[in-house]
Amino acid sequence: MTHAPILAFDIFGTVVDWHGSITREVAALYPQVDADAFALAWRAGYQPAMQRVRSGELGWTLIDDLHRLILDDLLPRFGLSALTETQKQHLNKVWHRLDPWPDTVAGLTRLKTRHTICSLSNGNIGLLTNMAKRAGLPWDCVLSAEVFRAYKPDPATYLGVARVFDVAPSDVMLVAAHQDDLAAARACGLRTAYIERPLEFGAKHPKDVSPDAANTFHAKSLVHLAEQLGC
Amino acid sequence: MTHAPILAFDIFGTVVDWHGSITREVAALYPQVDADAFALAWRAGYQPAMQRVRSGELGWTLIDDLHRLILDDLLPRFGLSALTETQKQHLNKVWHRLDPWPDTVAGLTRLKTRHTICSLSNGNIGLLTNMAKRAGLPWDCVLSAEVFRAYKPDPATYLGVARVFDVAPSDVMLVAAHQDDLAAARACGLRTAYIERPLEFGAKHPKDVSPDAANTFHAKSLVHLAEQLGC
Repeated sequence: MTHAPILAFDIFGTVVDWHGSITREVAALYPQVDADAFALAWRAGYQPAMQRVRSGELGWTLIDDLHRLILDDLLPRFGLSALTETQKQHLNKVWHRLDPWPDTVAGLTRLKTRHTICSLSNGNIGLLTNMAKRAGLPWDCVLSAEVFRAYKPDPATYLGVARVFDVAPSDVMLVAAHQDDLAAARACGLRTAYIERPLEFGAKHPKDVSPDAANTFHAKSLVHLAEQLGC
Repeated sequence: MTHAPILAFDIFGTVVDWHGSITREVAALYPQVDADAFALAWRAGYQPAMQRVRSGELGWTLIDDLHRLILDDLLPRFGLSALTETQKQHLNKVWHRLDPWPDTVAGLTRLKTRHTICSLSNGNIGLLTNMAKRAGLPWDCVLSAEVFRAYKPDPATYLGVARVFDVAPSDVMLVAAHQDDLAAARACGLRTAYIERPLEFGAKHPKDVSPDAANTFHAKSLVHLAEQLGC
């Protein structure tokens, strides 16, 4: 059809603002809690939880279920042991209700005019679909670790995108706000675009967004990436 | 989020007109061929090819590759043995270029306002995504046999939709133009909607579109289904 690369997007932090969204919802529901610390602690449990699956301690597990494992550990530490099961289930699905960054929908809409755009997230398909429907993310296709039964940075995920679209790895570009994700994609032969998200961890915890010359593109936003790609 | 059922759509024949699309393309490229017979023969190879995978004779195989196996068998029978590899690859991807029925985009767009809409096809993810991008099919999510590594009517596909969205089978409705597909979904507890596509096999081969009272809905088009669902 076209020789424009397939664009595969990291989601948490790159496309949506997990810290701001969780902080806002926790502050509204449970004003007694330090919402900033709660959001950071929940996210900090993410890599260790996936490591339990990678190591074989847990079988293949969807991110919804890993988020719940972490949440159950977190609630007593934040004085929320009294939540009902319904409240816990609702809170756990805050990850389906994350808000996009202000440039996200406009940027994706422009990029979609010339490229096939898909998610490539460790989040499960249902989470990503609910998020997209609520936030208006115009994906051509929702790809997830769930499709490949492997979490990023497993090469099966990056190479899986190329396989799904029957193209060479160099015809896929990963778009992410995390240099380690991009480095793993590059090692598989993908092109890479870094997106600056200095407030990913909240205004109190600014993040280093220095360029890495190894990336194909470096952009301040998804709109800025669309400009660089001529969309 | 909502209690409206997830709508999962069969694709070939239900959402897109495979017979008309293939007939038009073959007639344009190879006017010496009986395009109607060619399209019917290609489609007739589909179930036997999947059966080779179900029986274990072939390992898990994407529909793009099954279409190519059938095509390679078909070309000499239609006097097309001289096609180059590039021509064969192009022709095989006609399945990515199928046109929607006239009511499809309007119907899906209305249904999407109140329901999560996804494909549930034996077609592979890349095929379905390329088709959707070209035809403007506004899926919330592209689901495929490829995600579940099982072809319909394997229960893993119908129940897989419910599992992906973490809902009961009765909160999913299969929308299809084929009573056997709908019967298999019903056996798994899904709701079902039959869509009349009397010209699925072309104007020369009208299809019985009689209602089956076992279906939850019976509609003349996707717009008619949207009307019945109050969208």
